[in-house]
Amino acid sequence: ATEANVSHDSGDKGEYRHYMLKETYEQPTSVRNTLEGRLSGTELNIDTFGHGADEIFKNVDHVQIIACGTSYHSGMVARYWLEELAGVSCNIEIASEFRYRKSFVPKNSMIVTLSQSGETADTLAALRLAKEIGYTSSLSICNVPGSSLVRESDLSFMTKAGAEIGVASTKAFTTQLVGLLMMTLAIGKHHGMPIEQQQSIANSLQTLPNKLEEVLTLAPSIEDLAEDFADKHHALFLGRGDQYPIAMEGALKLKEISYIHAEAYAAGELKHGPLALIDAEMPVIVVAPKNDLIEKLKSNVEEVRARGGLMYVFADVDAHFESDDTMKVINVPHCDDIIAPIVYTLPLQLLSYYVAIIKGTDVDQPRNLAKSVTVE
Amino acid sequence: ATEANVSHDSGDKGEYRHYMLKETYEQPTSVRNTLEGRLSGTELNIDTFGHGADEIFKNVDHVQIIACGTSYHSGMVARYWLEELAGVSCNIEIASEFRYRKSFVPKNSMIVTLSQSGETADTLAALRLAKEIGYTSSLSICNVPGSSLVRESDLSFMTKAGAEIGVASTKAFTTQLVGLLMMTLAIGKHHGMPIEQQQSIANSLQTLPNKLEEVLTLAPSIEDLAEDFADKHHALFLGRGDQYPIAMEGALKLKEISYIHAEAYAAGELKHGPLALIDAEMPVIVVAPKNDLIEKLKSNVEEVRARGGLMYVFADVDAHFESDDTMKVINVPHCDDIIAPIVYTLPLQLLSYYVAIIKGTDVDQPRNLAKSVTVE
Repeated sequence: ATEANVSHDSGDKGEYRHYMLKETYEQPTSVRNTLEGRLSGTELNIDTFGHGADEIFKNVDHVQIIACGTSYHSGMVARYWLEELAGVSCNIEIASEFRYRKSFVPKNSMIVTLSQSGETADTLAALRLAKEIGYTSSLSICNVPGSSLVRESDLSFMTKAGAEIGVASTKAFTTQLVGLLMMTLAIGKHHGMPIEQQQSIANSLQTLPNKLEEVLTLAPSIEDLAEDFADKHHALFLGRGDQYPIAMEGALKLKEISYIHAEAYAAGELKHGPLALIDAEMPVIVVAPKNDLIEKLKSNVEEVRARGGLMYVFADVDAHFESDDTMKVINVPHCDDIIAPIVYTLPLQLLSYYVAIIKGTDVDQPRNLAKSVTVE
Repeated sequence: ATEANVSHDSGDKGEYRHYMLKETYEQPTSVRNTLEGRLSGTELNIDTFGHGADEIFKNVDHVQIIACGTSYHSGMVARYWLEELAGVSCNIEIASEFRYRKSFVPKNSMIVTLSQSGETADTLAALRLAKEIGYTSSLSICNVPGSSLVRESDLSFMTKAGAEIGVASTKAFTTQLVGLLMMTLAIGKHHGMPIEQQQSIANSLQTLPNKLEEVLTLAPSIEDLAEDFADKHHALFLGRGDQYPIAMEGALKLKEISYIHAEAYAAGELKHGPLALIDAEMPVIVVAPKNDLIEKLKSNVEEVRARGGLMYVFADVDAHFESDDTMKVINVPHCDDIIAPIVYTLPLQLLSYYVAIIKGTDVDQPRNLAKSVTVE
């Protein structure tokens, strides 16, 4: 079995020490490029998904998202968005599971594949299977024009992230989320999403690039924080709702490049097992935007505190978390609820980066991993 | 916040050192009791689910399973069964997530709650929410008659596991799976499941108690194996298809009672992140029944081997795995595919038990955990 590798050109890193850091900092621009020409004010250009996209979205009653790795986490966020806002049912499944089981195909179902490269072997096989078993339409959200997933899907949304060289995905992930939120708008308008809500989501998207620039200014304080992780072998990430997948993505990033065994849990599951692991050797990272779940999340934080856990809380500046002996709080600028999953991703990317730097690992080429998994 | 605790009576442990071991060994009997009166030969007594059950199952087009912790894993297995065999769509979600998001309710949907105690706070809240938002019918699979979930559901299936005292669930989990497989039969017969297939599943269920007795005879070799884990702080569990949830359950057991940071992955996801963690300090446990996925699983085993991982493979005796320097194989007696998730659970329960004994933890009352999570 061979694995695809992207050839490196160190000249491309510019002022940055690693591709991953460069790509993390490119995110405001990548998102700006991804929005450009798609969203004029609050008006979504649905044709950006392809010819006849509006007619296809109109007939979608169910969305099945298929992805692997990091892309799986963006799909998980989209499930929260689609069911709450777009009025359609949505499932998300790992490609290597979907393709080898007999799944039920609901009527008027669209298969949505997510992949940076558009060549992920299991995802491509899942798309081909979906077409055989009766999915009505297909859409790929992808960063490489002309890739297999794009060619073989009815519709596509190109993330304009530019080349992503670091094996640990950053800007491909956040621009996928932008694409998925536009897809939510495109489907929602046919399923009763009020026009005010469409406009409100579009407005929030327009604020995103500047918000990402703001959140990147947290880098120095996150770099300080990273020192605490230098001697740790474990980490637990917690989130609720659409931040649960972001906790998963934060854990995966730390795993991939720092080789710390990081795992994420939906915070409400703490009492059902992972609390047994909590001690001073298992730092707990919490993503805490100010939304309807913030009080529930605060209870979870107290559970961890009562068991002697050390916490690192990325919290909305208005959520009133305060640093103390057991908890370090990083204040994240306030942002609209809908874009919070995208905004909170960046501090977690920076955390994994700075921890890896301290650990001295090969950030852009972590051991055992390839950029695109083009073999099964 | 108070947490429920079950009072202990050491006299009940009989010849066993711990409740958990006793309850692990009770599983052939628990399953026999759970089958009794429900399955006469290959004939399923659908009334066991409650008055009018057959009519209710007839009208089910979608099943939404809700659970927490260990019960979540049995629900995950049921999703594979229901979609492949019963001809209905199925979702499974963590109760604390489901109850706090706005989810889509498909037509003719049944909500199925899983809980040993029937009092799990988030699961009960999810059931109440489901009734409000338009679920057509409800079923609870539960070990405590008269519990809140049972009282508030249209239908119920009582697992006849008997009192489960150990905090780490064993026999409640495997009898839940028996209940879920009977539910698959009850729904499947109305959705085109061929009579031969119904009979074949029923026959497999009838072989289960003896098969579980057989698999318990592996205890001494699993006890030997446990020594290898005494100085380990991490473990990775791998499975594919309906064994992926069993890998998750194996990881949770090890976490709960030995405090080893164990995590499970669908084996096809290895290349998308967790391979970076593989080294000699991270033992990899694989569940490998002989089914359609065995060759794929063997490729995953080779990936781990190539990265210097040490493996422990619970493999069907006919699957031709051989022990060597990098891999210890525990031969599991062959069993029918459909019951393999139940059969492979027991060796993983025994592994976590013996590792905990070596580590000297409080097996029946692991730190920070309560038997029933009756508060949010």
